[in-house]
Amino acid sequence: MQKIRIGIVGYGNIGRGVQSAINQSDDMELIAVFTRRDASTLNVNDPKVKVIHIDNAFNYVNEIDVMILCGGSANDLPTQGPQFAAKFNTVDTFDTHAKIPEYFEKMDESSKMCKKISAISIGWDPGLFSINRMFAEAILPNGENYTFWGKGVSQGHSEALKKVEGVKYGIQYTIPKEDAINKVRLGENPKLTTKERHLRECFIVPEENSNRDKIETTIKNMPNYFEPYETVIHFITEEEFKENHKKMPHGGFVIRTGKTGFNNENNQLYEFSIKLESNPEFTSSIVVAYARAIYRMNKEGIYGAKTVFDIPIGYLSPKSMADLRKELL
Amino acid sequence: MQKIRIGIVGYGNIGRGVQSAINQSDDMELIAVFTRRDASTLNVNDPKVKVIHIDNAFNYVNEIDVMILCGGSANDLPTQGPQFAAKFNTVDTFDTHAKIPEYFEKMDESSKMCKKISAISIGWDPGLFSINRMFAEAILPNGENYTFWGKGVSQGHSEALKKVEGVKYGIQYTIPKEDAINKVRLGENPKLTTKERHLRECFIVPEENSNRDKIETTIKNMPNYFEPYETVIHFITEEEFKENHKKMPHGGFVIRTGKTGFNNENNQLYEFSIKLESNPEFTSSIVVAYARAIYRMNKEGIYGAKTVFDIPIGYLSPKSMADLRKELL
Repeated sequence: MQKIRIGIVGYGNIGRGVQSAINQSDDMELIAVFTRRDASTLNVNDPKVKVIHIDNAFNYVNEIDVMILCGGSANDLPTQGPQFAAKFNTVDTFDTHAKIPEYFEKMDESSKMCKKISAISIGWDPGLFSINRMFAEAILPNGENYTFWGKGVSQGHSEALKKVEGVKYGIQYTIPKEDAINKVRLGENPKLTTKERHLRECFIVPEENSNRDKIETTIKNMPNYFEPYETVIHFITEEEFKENHKKMPHGGFVIRTGKTGFNNENNQLYEFSIKLESNPEFTSSIVVAYARAIYRMNKEGIYGAKTVFDIPIGYLSPKSMADLRKELL
Repeated sequence: MQKIRIGIVGYGNIGRGVQSAINQSDDMELIAVFTRRDASTLNVNDPKVKVIHIDNAFNYVNEIDVMILCGGSANDLPTQGPQFAAKFNTVDTFDTHAKIPEYFEKMDESSKMCKKISAISIGWDPGLFSINRMFAEAILPNGENYTFWGKGVSQGHSEALKKVEGVKYGIQYTIPKEDAINKVRLGENPKLTTKERHLRECFIVPEENSNRDKIETTIKNMPNYFEPYETVIHFITEEEFKENHKKMPHGGFVIRTGKTGFNNENNQLYEFSIKLESNPEFTSSIVVAYARAIYRMNKEGIYGAKTVFDIPIGYLSPKSMADLRKELL
């Protein structure tokens, strides 16, 4: 069987996660990594994988079945997305929620020009969580959706910590509040702001001779990032930081309770959750399954921009639809 | 806007659940209930809904957009399914796992004859649980799926109780074992038989002057039903039975843990669960959302038999794909 030939654009955490997910997939092979850096300096730890400068990517139109765009939503994807979608099947993790409709239109236009598919906003949120929010709302119209994030590292908040005077290293975990989750599970449909659903836990390695009280006050009063939240701060040693805070865990919950029956007399609870030791590797695993899906769909003549709402999930599996009906239905 | 016109075939627990779910859906209306009984004796508590003998169903081809088949998998659907699928868009809850491939082929043949869609095996298992098993396997190939059922009433086991000498009323709940669930969540990938995953809890109202020890021994030694399982028996009064055991709760879990990373060094936990006060109403709510989905797909010219693996989930919602991208992605 001919393997699905994958290209990776951008070799950061997601790019590496995609590479390791492809290694777990017998029906796929990684052909090349495309980079903005000097290609000769990038080591991808696999002699079979080419490293190519991004400017030469379009020379590979006949060698790559799906191009996985691993750049960021703020600066890379808004221009890179439409460029690549005009030449390749693409999958990306575009996650600027407010700009998804605009991005979708541009990607749709590009991918229709070459009759390929661009799968946008793939991952777990947007992505897997969106599927669950949508599914739960469709089957339990008389109810309420709740999303909780964490326990997990927030890159943005961790960056903010590092800018505080006296902070040598810092990391921030977003933690869902157990009592809020339990209220939701009971079907109480509580009104909960993001702040009431989460607390922020920070681990700080202070510089020598720094003022811990001042660090703590500065962090807790940082507007938007920490100020409206319940924030817990721990000062730790550099050794502890390096030992216990090097992974990128994350997770979260999508919960909906709804009422059914002629008199809305029955409570129904729908709950989806994930607990991840590596956030980028999980995101990448989803992205790779969607690369398989759009490759198969495009072979059937389907094209244009697609989201998780448009793609039948059977295409994600390497198994045939007949085997899926037999084994997993 | 023209509402989606629904017909119900068979007015048992699922039929009534479908009726109440349609009442919660502004874009749908129930046109008629088709029954094998004498139509004049069936009260559906809604003067706008026609009650028609099943023999006359084919006269309604132009008045019904989707026919929801609420019969049983053992005796009704194997013949009713292919008959109705040759004339109508249909949704059913066919749940005899071993016979799904054969049933799919028959339904596919029928629905292609009239260029309509038959959505088969819709509900939560098969259905929503199948989606989660499949999705989890596709994104975490290096892992293991676990399904737990309950806490919920098993109709078959409750029937078996009632046949025991000295039992006036009886009900059986299947309960997932907490320690087994926790082992799975920890990523230990334990080998667990159905029996090791569940225990059986029975509530019995004994006849007057019956021998409780004998009832207990008979139940616990009933082969297949109770014999290999851990079975707990409670004797209760008729009043307590009628007060606390009239609902049809159910639920369950689909859990997968998988490892990602170049050295399989990171554990990832995927968990889906439901907790239902009414099993038939939840099943019916899913069925009604899929009726909407196949109506919309058929309008676009798609036809043939479909399962949850084939149907893009965006079609389940009354919202447009553009609104879904904006609001729920």
